[in-house]
Amino acid sequence: MLQESSVDSSGSRFAPLVVLELASDTKEEAIAWLLSRIRDRQQNGGAELLVEQLGPGIGLEEKENPNMFLVGASMQRLLCGAEDLGLFKECTDGSMRAFTFASKHNFKDFKGDGDGFLSMAECQYVIKHELDTLRAKEETNVPGYSHAKLYPGKSIIRRLLSKGILIQMFPLHENEELKRLSFSWYKKVKVSLQPLDDIRHYYGEGQALYFGFLEYFTFALMPMALIGVPYYLFDWEDYDKYVVFAVFNLIWCTVILELWKRRSASLAYYWGTLCRKKAFEEPRPGFHGVLGHNPVTGRAEPIYPTSKRHLRVYLVSLPFVLLCLYLSLYIMMIYFQMEGWALSIYDENPTFWTHILLFIPSIIYAVVIEAMNLIYRYAAEFLTEWENHRLESSYQNHLVLKVLVFNFFNCFASLFYIAFVMQDMELLRQSLATLLITSQILNQFMEAFLPYWLQRRRNKKMIRKIQKRRLYEEKELPLVEQVRLEADMSTYLGTFDDYLELFLLFGYVSLFSCVFPLAAVLVVLNNITEVYSDAFKMCRVFKRPFADPAANIGVWQLAFEAMSVIAVVTNCALIGMSPQVRSYFPESETQLILCTVAAEHVLLGFKFILTFLIQDVPKHIQDKLARLEFESLEALKKKRQLHGGKCWKPRSSVRLSSEEDRCACRY
Amino acid sequence: MLQESSVDSSGSRFAPLVVLELASDTKEEAIAWLLSRIRDRQQNGGAELLVEQLGPGIGLEEKENPNMFLVGASMQRLLCGAEDLGLFKECTDGSMRAFTFASKHNFKDFKGDGDGFLSMAECQYVIKHELDTLRAKEETNVPGYSHAKLYPGKSIIRRLLSKGILIQMFPLHENEELKRLSFSWYKKVKVSLQPLDDIRHYYGEGQALYFGFLEYFTFALMPMALIGVPYYLFDWEDYDKYVVFAVFNLIWCTVILELWKRRSASLAYYWGTLCRKKAFEEPRPGFHGVLGHNPVTGRAEPIYPTSKRHLRVYLVSLPFVLLCLYLSLYIMMIYFQMEGWALSIYDENPTFWTHILLFIPSIIYAVVIEAMNLIYRYAAEFLTEWENHRLESSYQNHLVLKVLVFNFFNCFASLFYIAFVMQDMELLRQSLATLLITSQILNQFMEAFLPYWLQRRRNKKMIRKIQKRRLYEEKELPLVEQVRLEADMSTYLGTFDDYLELFLLFGYVSLFSCVFPLAAVLVVLNNITEVYSDAFKMCRVFKRPFADPAANIGVWQLAFEAMSVIAVVTNCALIGMSPQVRSYFPESETQLILCTVAAEHVLLGFKFILTFLIQDVPKHIQDKLARLEFESLEALKKKRQLHGGKCWKPRSSVRLSSEEDRCACRY
Repeated sequence: MLQESSVDSSGSRFAPLVVLELASDTKEEAIAWLLSRIRDRQQNGGAELLVEQLGPGIGLEEKENPNMFLVGASMQRLLCGAEDLGLFKECTDGSMRAFTFASKHNFKDFKGDGDGFLSMAECQYVIKHELDTLRAKEETNVPGYSHAKLYPGKSIIRRLLSKGILIQMFPLHENEELKRLSFSWYKKVKVSLQPLDDIRHYYGEGQALYFGFLEYFTFALMPMALIGVPYYLFDWEDYDKYVVFAVFNLIWCTVILELWKRRSASLAYYWGTLCRKKAFEEPRPGFHGVLGHNPVTGRAEPIYPTSKRHLRVYLVSLPFVLLCLYLSLYIMMIYFQMEGWALSIYDENPTFWTHILLFIPSIIYAVVIEAMNLIYRYAAEFLTEWENHRLESSYQNHLVLKVLVFNFFNCFASLFYIAFVMQDMELLRQSLATLLITSQILNQFMEAFLPYWLQRRRNKKMIRKIQKRRLYEEKELPLVEQVRLEADMSTYLGTFDDYLELFLLFGYVSLFSCVFPLAAVLVVLNNITEVYSDAFKMCRVFKRPFADPAANIGVWQLAFEAMSVIAVVTNCALIGMSPQVRSYFPESETQLILCTVAAEHVLLGFKFILTFLIQDVPKHIQDKLARLEFESLEALKKKRQLHGGKCWKPRSSVRLSSEEDRCACRY
Repeated sequence: MLQESSVDSSGSRFAPLVVLELASDTKEEAIAWLLSRIRDRQQNGGAELLVEQLGPGIGLEEKENPNMFLVGASMQRLLCGAEDLGLFKECTDGSMRAFTFASKHNFKDFKGDGDGFLSMAECQYVIKHELDTLRAKEETNVPGYSHAKLYPGKSIIRRLLSKGILIQMFPLHENEELKRLSFSWYKKVKVSLQPLDDIRHYYGEGQALYFGFLEYFTFALMPMALIGVPYYLFDWEDYDKYVVFAVFNLIWCTVILELWKRRSASLAYYWGTLCRKKAFEEPRPGFHGVLGHNPVTGRAEPIYPTSKRHLRVYLVSLPFVLLCLYLSLYIMMIYFQMEGWALSIYDENPTFWTHILLFIPSIIYAVVIEAMNLIYRYAAEFLTEWENHRLESSYQNHLVLKVLVFNFFNCFASLFYIAFVMQDMELLRQSLATLLITSQILNQFMEAFLPYWLQRRRNKKMIRKIQKRRLYEEKELPLVEQVRLEADMSTYLGTFDDYLELFLLFGYVSLFSCVFPLAAVLVVLNNITEVYSDAFKMCRVFKRPFADPAANIGVWQLAFEAMSVIAVVTNCALIGMSPQVRSYFPESETQLILCTVAAEHVLLGFKFILTFLIQDVPKHIQDKLARLEFESLEALKKKRQLHGGKCWKPRSSVRLSSEEDRCACRY
């Protein structure tokens, strides 16, 4: 599975897994120190990994960074690392258990000395973890860099990264496997499901869950798309009919999210991430503060008072977000003025061109929305960085919250205004269609073609290398060339933007699609091309990302659920406003409103109950988890009884592996 | 701590902890078999406990059941049992860790051979657990009882209980400690907090959490009561003023429940139940079905198809509950007719007596409500039993749901009708006051005085024994007499009814107290007497219950939170209906309703966000839990490094205790 390649400059052979790129002007003493710490044995506080400098490339015509290092490890070191990380693997009896070296032969795919037992992505994750947890001992600074302060226990790699000495650390692609994966993923012509297990094998669970969700979401939209087409064809102008569609919408968006939780739990169970215990979370690289002691680990660590962070969040970030929301509203009002002008021009002179003009404000507004989202995104990242969160997860949550609120407001404010203030269903339909189509086209462009194109332009050297690669054709590119090629590729920034896009699409469909039944069809088409463009950019455009052993889609589940609550409210309001329903309450508007509100409350209550009734983890997986838990308890008990009931007798060295698998799952 | 008493009939001495009462006509062979199984060593599948028959009492004038057995255990056996159960105790460094015999000297109160380390309640819980998990081996039935079938792995005690051979199993009181506890709890005259730690020490965590919640709830009501008195004195007739009170209500009921979660987590942490892993839950004693195999344990066990249970729940129980709700509505309508008659009589002839008559329908209705609640309770228990739930927890959830829905409807339907259909605030106030006061009086009567009085009447023998006891005064009653005395006491049926009462009181206060500000004062007074009457009945009226190592108030937290959501809706509606608010929208009722609904949605959203912002577990306890988790990971890692980084080397017998405490808490 791993490509066994010799490193030119040395006699030793190992499979390179991860590349460290240091700044080209890094001082020799710092390099020597770093390499010795990486190679040092674990009992001396080293990482006990293999590391070699990358030799010069073939075409030495340009300045190349000499400070590129390949990191690998012996199979045994990787397996120990996997045990440290608590990776879950399938046992011979079909259950998923935490891997331990001692019980390695109980695991299904363990053969010989374990070659091929861990996927390359897992090996790279192990190496990343070992490098990340390589800690300073007595050093007070990085040798040769007096400003790069260290203290006992500080992660060396994180300090090097934050000081710019380490430029990047990335895992290598595996060309053979990538070729196979890309063929089964997006090059095949026949329609089929995505190879989720292969994606997980190559990119890790976080990526695979994203593509799994994308696929699930597309299938979930199918019934809506199928109902939407006849609606569009036969009832396009019959506004009254949308009540049925709204009711369907309302049930749909609740049920699919509950079912996704079950699907996600199934996937995560078989991928071994559902039960895995999370390691203690280290501070982010950029986190700074006065040196103090962490109350949990007792280690030296920067301390930043929570009260100061709260002040920054509530006195700076919150007002900023509110200001941006106000700005967004202001631009929306300008859009409605433009809309008014366009309409007045059309009324004065109704020609084909003035009819086209009617769509122009919507298109401009859609482009402006996308631009604002993009600019706001940078501002939000800057602000969240400045809030100085200790943990990456906390940083992510604050960033997601900021971005979600603004994007939701920015994209949907005009639709809400049209639907509930102007109550103009014709305009709502037109506006929704324009927004949806424009944003889809823009997104596809921004997401796949632009990075690819920029990449090609920015780096002529790379094109030459690609051409050189083409010369080699089937033969492998020499390792040195391949590493330099990958080092120049763009960095994949995570699934954030992909989920955000799905979130907004989910919003368009669940909130207002009853007035534009074709929305689901458009989103399905978009998702299908999305699969291809995302797969393409993962395989061709970006550096390989490190695997992310996620057990679920995290905060996005919450975001989608919040959206589905808003969808219930919106659809109820749309139903209440429909002429069909209004006709039942001819004399009293008050009564109509009260009935709508009552129905909405009942539906929200029902939705809440449904969340309880549908179990988050399927029964057969619950049973398997309970079985693991039960076995570990029984093993402990039995061992005690073997010792004649004298539980204080020293324990024998025989250790049942199941004892360690106690699973801290929530189900 | 344990009373060391000799058992009359034998030479052996041990502290009796638990009493088993078998039917007086139990066959000799069954008794002999049961005793041998209890005494047998653990490696032979026994419980390894000490058990002796209770000798005849002093006053042998009446027929006494000879088949009473005292169960105890050696200290070492109890400590091993505590390790099996995973009890958490305080260590010398102040952290809470799972007790293990091997690391016993790390624990704070461990002295000598461990005498006094476990509280008597904990010892009794250990014995109960050991008896409950005493399993049949090859026996096919209880000796002498061919209808009492057994199969390998069946809990013997549960079968004996379900066949009526074992009448009861209860823990003994400890008179000295009980005297101390009752003095500090309810006999002291000066106002002080309840001795929660002592209550927990004597009755276990479940009881202590109930009393802790009762106390917390009372304090939480204080500000409302304090605001309520001036409202009552000065604004009694000024209906307009209730808006301020409703807003206050609305915030109050959200905040106190969130803060209770933190308080509960603190208590549970220091009592060692927050982190304790739950043992595998065994089927309930009454659960029956075709013999099959449990998918989790692989043991023989009755299997009952879930689909059949669903049929029973949805086709029988659900229609029954709906029928009861309809009946409750019907009776409510009769009440309104009576109310109408009383009013017409008063209008015709307004004297003092006819004025009194106005209150009569409300009082009758309150009594009928209480009676219906009581009858329904029995029906719900019967139905839930018949649904044949496998687990006690599932049985409890279905029972609580049934009872809550009906009681809520039964108690509050008339108030909702008066408030929102009749919109008569004067009647609402009068009705609320009558309901609240009548139900409080009835409850106090039913709960404390009636059982005590019934107990006295039913069992004249017991009175004599109490008198005899009084003769002994300070001297201890002989053990034999004390056991028989306690065996005749009523059985405490758990905290269900107590929580239910608090739930309804919480409803009265949070839903409608803005129109009757004195409600909070009444509830505070009720709670104070409730503490005393509950404490009295726990100490004097009932048998001692087994400890219940609860980590929170369980399903009741959810019930109270559901009530607080309903309270937000109700209070918003009451505010919207107030003349004060109406005056802002003089021309348009539609606008008023829309604004009220919008405000309600914003408040519900805000409540939801608040639930996220207020962390369920206080920071310092989160840190302690994280520290435990971190230490166990570090210990594992260090051990591996000590072995020269070779993780496949057989583990040494040294075992770090922290490795076992991995804590599966949710925070």
